[in-house]
Amino acid sequence: MLHQMFRVRWTAWKQLDTNDQKTILQEAADAIEKMEQNASGQSAIFSLLGHKGDLLFVHFRNSFEKLNSVELVLSRLRLFDYLEQTTSYLSVVELGLYESTVKTYESLIERGIEPNSPEWSAEIEEVLNRQREAMHSRLFPEMPPQKYASFYPMDRKRGEAINWYTLPLQERQRQMHEHGLVGRRYAGTVKQIISGSIGFDDWEWGVTLFADDPLVFKKLIYEMRFDEVSAVYAAFGSFYVGVRVPARDLATVLGGKAIKD
Amino acid sequence: MLHQMFRVRWTAWKQLDTNDQKTILQEAADAIEKMEQNASGQSAIFSLLGHKGDLLFVHFRNSFEKLNSVELVLSRLRLFDYLEQTTSYLSVVELGLYESTVKTYESLIERGIEPNSPEWSAEIEEVLNRQREAMHSRLFPEMPPQKYASFYPMDRKRGEAINWYTLPLQERQRQMHEHGLVGRRYAGTVKQIISGSIGFDDWEWGVTLFADDPLVFKKLIYEMRFDEVSAVYAAFGSFYVGVRVPARDLATVLGGKAIKD
Amino acid sequence: MLHQMFRVRWTAWKQLDTNDQKTILQEAADAIEKMEQNASGQSAIFSLLGHKGDLLFVHFRNSFEKLNSVELVLSRLRLFDYLEQTTSYLSVVELGLYESTVKTYESLIERGIEPNSPEWSAEIEEVLNRQREAMHSRLFPEMPPQKYASFYPMDRKRGEAINWYTLPLQERQRQMHEHGLVGRRYAGTVKQIISGSIGFDDWEWGVTLFADDPLVFKKLIYEMRFDEVSAVYAAFGSFYVGVRVPARDLATVLGGKAIKD
Amino acid sequence: MLHQMFRVRWTAWKQLDTNDQKTILQEAADAIEKMEQNASGQSAIFSLLGHKGDLLFVHFRNSFEKLNSVELVLSRLRLFDYLEQTTSYLSVVELGLYESTVKTYESLIERGIEPNSPEWSAEIEEVLNRQREAMHSRLFPEMPPQKYASFYPMDRKRGEAINWYTLPLQERQRQMHEHGLVGRRYAGTVKQIISGSIGFDDWEWGVTLFADDPLVFKKLIYEMRFDEVSAVYAAFGSFYVGVRVPARDLATVLGGKAIKD
Amino acid sequence: MLHQMFRVRWTAWKQLDTNDQKTILQEAADAIEKMEQNASGQSAIFSLLGHKGDLLFVHFRNSFEKLNSVELVLSRLRLFDYLEQTTSYLSVVELGLYESTVKTYESLIERGIEPNSPEWSAEIEEVLNRQREAMHSRLFPEMPPQKYASFYPMDRKRGEAINWYTLPLQERQRQMHEHGLVGRRYAGTVKQIISGSIGFDDWEWGVTLFADDPLVFKKLIYEMRFDEVSAVYAAFGSFYVGVRVPARDLATVLGGKAIKD
Repeated sequence: MLHQMFRVRWTAWKQLDTNDQKTILQEAADAIEKMEQNASGQSAIFSLLGHKGDLLFVHFRNSFEKLNSVELVLSRLRLFDYLEQTTSYLSVVELGLYESTVKTYESLIERGIEPNSPEWSAEIEEVLNRQREAMHSRLFPEMPPQKYASFYPMDRKRGEAINWYTLPLQERQRQMHEHGLVGRRYAGTVKQIISGSIGFDDWEWGVTLFADDPLVFKKLIYEMRFDEVSAVYAAFGSFYVGVRVPARDLATVLGGKAIKD
Repeated sequence: MLHQMFRVRWTAWKQLDTNDQKTILQEAADAIEKMEQNASGQSAIFSLLGHKGDLLFVHFRNSFEKLNSVELVLSRLRLFDYLEQTTSYLSVVELGLYESTVKTYESLIERGIEPNSPEWSAEIEEVLNRQREAMHSRLFPEMPPQKYASFYPMDRKRGEAINWYTLPLQERQRQMHEHGLVGRRYAGTVKQIISGSIGFDDWEWGVTLFADDPLVFKKLIYEMRFDEVSAVYAAFGSFYVGVRVPARDLATVLGGKAIKD
Repeated sequence: MLHQMFRVRWTAWKQLDTNDQKTILQEAADAIEKMEQNASGQSAIFSLLGHKGDLLFVHFRNSFEKLNSVELVLSRLRLFDYLEQTTSYLSVVELGLYESTVKTYESLIERGIEPNSPEWSAEIEEVLNRQREAMHSRLFPEMPPQKYASFYPMDRKRGEAINWYTLPLQERQRQMHEHGLVGRRYAGTVKQIISGSIGFDDWEWGVTLFADDPLVFKKLIYEMRFDEVSAVYAAFGSFYVGVRVPARDLATVLGGKAIKD
Repeated sequence: MLHQMFRVRWTAWKQLDTNDQKTILQEAADAIEKMEQNASGQSAIFSLLGHKGDLLFVHFRNSFEKLNSVELVLSRLRLFDYLEQTTSYLSVVELGLYESTVKTYESLIERGIEPNSPEWSAEIEEVLNRQREAMHSRLFPEMPPQKYASFYPMDRKRGEAINWYTLPLQERQRQMHEHGLVGRRYAGTVKQIISGSIGFDDWEWGVTLFADDPLVFKKLIYEMRFDEVSAVYAAFGSFYVGVRVPARDLATVLGGKAIKD
Repeated sequence: MLHQMFRVRWTAWKQLDTNDQKTILQEAADAIEKMEQNASGQSAIFSLLGHKGDLLFVHFRNSFEKLNSVELVLSRLRLFDYLEQTTSYLSVVELGLYESTVKTYESLIERGIEPNSPEWSAEIEEVLNRQREAMHSRLFPEMPPQKYASFYPMDRKRGEAINWYTLPLQERQRQMHEHGLVGRRYAGTVKQIISGSIGFDDWEWGVTLFADDPLVFKKLIYEMRFDEVSAVYAAFGSFYVGVRVPARDLATVLGGKAIKD
């Protein structure tokens, strides 16, 4: 997953004559529409609120090479001479596997297999492979259709007294389970995609929420902030909120109008 | 609510000839005057003190879509070629409902309704809906008329030993109640609008104060800093202070004169 | 009080021919000389050392409206096309009233007046008014004449274990008293102006020191750093040091020469 | 070791006509290809993902003078008019010598040699020299051939309660030993180069990982995050991930295409 | 002492024709060579490694006025249209006087003189004056001749539990004494200049190291990091490392070649 945030260079853009704007927008809309419909990983655009950017691009692809290709293709579009990248986020979609991991570990230990032995690793790998297959559509999701998106990166704290990484697995599993119960109450109204970025970007996880009513972002995150795992162990980065802009409507936004229902 | 801070590109602006300045200012004043008088959510401009910006725009609207529209409309104005956005803040007006929430919870528990059960949620939702209706004018406020504004974002701390989110609801209610007593003493001189931004922007709340004497901002906030909830649990972002500029007086400020009484 | 820090756009400035430089400097010197001599609040310029800026403007005025006017007047000067504002600080001159406040509170309590009752507030307000009148010249100071200035903003800490705002008033008064004793030993060599900025800018106080020997800034602040109130409760922002430049000598500095005694 | 991160000035680059681009790329490819093959210290380029940069240069050289020369030679290339340096990292390849150091210290102490005496220092120096010779190829490594690189700087914490530098050597050795066991499990899939930067750059160490599957960066670093030494004592800076671009393929990337297998 | 860091505007510089470059370099070399040889305070240039800057200027002068003059003279040189200042550091050379201070204090107390009484202050001032005279050459040092320089600013911590400024003088003296022992072992290979910047710049001290082998910077600072005073009480800013460039060799560096032995 790659999130890209861009600011529009309005002054330069507005100086173009209408025909140039049309040609440039047509070229961009054609290229991005293909990305929206790409079978092996889709893209979507959102019109951001506030100064952190004017446009958010969200890209799903099945390799870093493909994400790198997306970046390079976009940078070649004439439209990108009128966009300035303000930030970005690189991550990989993740499944929350605490419960199955705890079960797997317990069963291996019961069977007397020594942790981190070759046998242990082989068994774990096999379980993970089965899960990856079973949950392929969650690991390689389609772009959710909702109108609003909220994105933020986060860490689990490693403080002097409060340290997620020194908690026993079972305790982490218990807190994540409780946390999941809140999320489940919002299942119908918010689509949540968790992606991991340890080793890839400056926070440990990225959270991308999709909803048709943006107020539910606030309700969900506020309610979760009282969960033990969030209240005590979560550190949050910047928040980005945007309204979806289908590629074919880029001209509307760059013409100064918001996307209506 | 959207707060937008802009710096004037003075050198470029001053290079325009007087007629161009007039036309540009007329176009901007017309557009912004409409926003000042917009029945379903108003805007106001303030001339900021210090380097953080020259102009602060405060926008009330009843949806994110409308706020997005405001941003896009403004960015199309010729005046905005001479403004550079330095920062912004996105939030939603909130009511302080600690006292009624505590009462509602207590009464539901008394009636034997299990927390977070469907029945519980339905009752809560009903109470909230009644409150939203009763306090519609506080949720969708008119732009206060005072001459000076002070804006700052803030968090409740989630530190290693000091953590607002692990306090019991009753304790949070008690501290907020005390905090409110100080605010009430300033009710006649300061109009205070609290907006929540969890899930929307980088702090949890935005506070916008309006007064005719800017010294009362300092008195109020200094006095509150000794309240337990502020002294112990508050973290503050940047502070922005400005003098109101009616849209029709933009030419005065951009001509190098402050707004007088 | 408004502190403004500017960087000179040397390359653009040096490209002007000598006559243009002269006209621009004459216009600026005339405007700023008036500000230096302004009866109801003076201004002064300092040539800053280091990359944080080339020029520091310090403005005393008796209202925010007047400070806003100063900013707008300066931004209209042609010289300001060759200056880039790097930072600023907005604050209000304050008197250290811990000792008299403690006395007033104690006497009111002795007289049986309930804290924060209307009677209490009226008595406090009366005492403050008497003090404001008696100390008018300290609240609205003239620009000190010394050659060097050092400016820095500061906070009192609100940490997890160390929190100034949860100390009893008497304890704060005791620490401030000790702190004042050190300051008093430097009374002859350093003029110190404390201004408060809670609600106005990003730190709680601004400290502006004036002296004819800049080494005393270091001696004074180093010695104070061992006071309990500084050692334990102070947090400091950036430090700015400059050499005074009378408006009529701006041409010297912009011509590449330092101001000599 | 010098890591250099650059952003491509796409707009300016795309404005060049194809012939100019070819000449400029030829000049750059020739110079950088020499650096890739340089016998006494090689260089490599990676196409970065995300906004932190478009190109990462990794340089191994046997002196700071040579690294300084690399910087100056690159800055003279015409291509570098179209690159903007966003950040960099300066460090020296290090060997993890905790185990041998503990052994050496113990044997010297057994032999009754006083720590930090001239005899002690001479013995240590001799051991180090032997090791440097024995491990010359690890101190002056060739550029690993893998397709992906991940770079991040890190510190050992010196907090109020958690302080790596006040732990006894034996305890540090024990934790580093455990940490190494995890690394060893990834030996076949990840090549790891640790470089020290105390006194040279803003973090204490730089970690550069090379792999053919970028997901193993995440797996390795996530697994290590639960080691005591990482969970408790590590602080991490920004992460940079890139896909290798041989100098002769620079034209592909600057033409808007990703490097394929 | 003033440290100034500059980035070269390579693109603009390379666009100049060779004759212009020569004239500009001659003017700069003449001016800076005089500064290198200035009897009452010398200057030196270093070619920095990494993105933090291309050139480091280190200036010793005997007053802030003279340092301000250096800045203004440099900014008038045509070369400085091709340099962009990235940062700077302002400080005053200091002697480590803990041991003599402890002795002086003890002897005054023995003689029954009350701390901070006029007599006490007079005695202290006399001792300091004697020391300043005796150590004049250490207070006003010549520029050390070594090839490499490393500069970094630092603080002593004032944390919640760890606070240098609340330690008794004798304890600080003890820790500084131990710290000095490590430094003394490197006396032959590293020249260290400590300068204080309390009241002048954003850290409390600046450390400038000079050596002919840059690896000793790392060895020395790494070894010292285990001293109690560094391990527990030191906070470090950014590190800058450079290779000396005599003014007459500026053309070499700006021509894209490193300085060789």
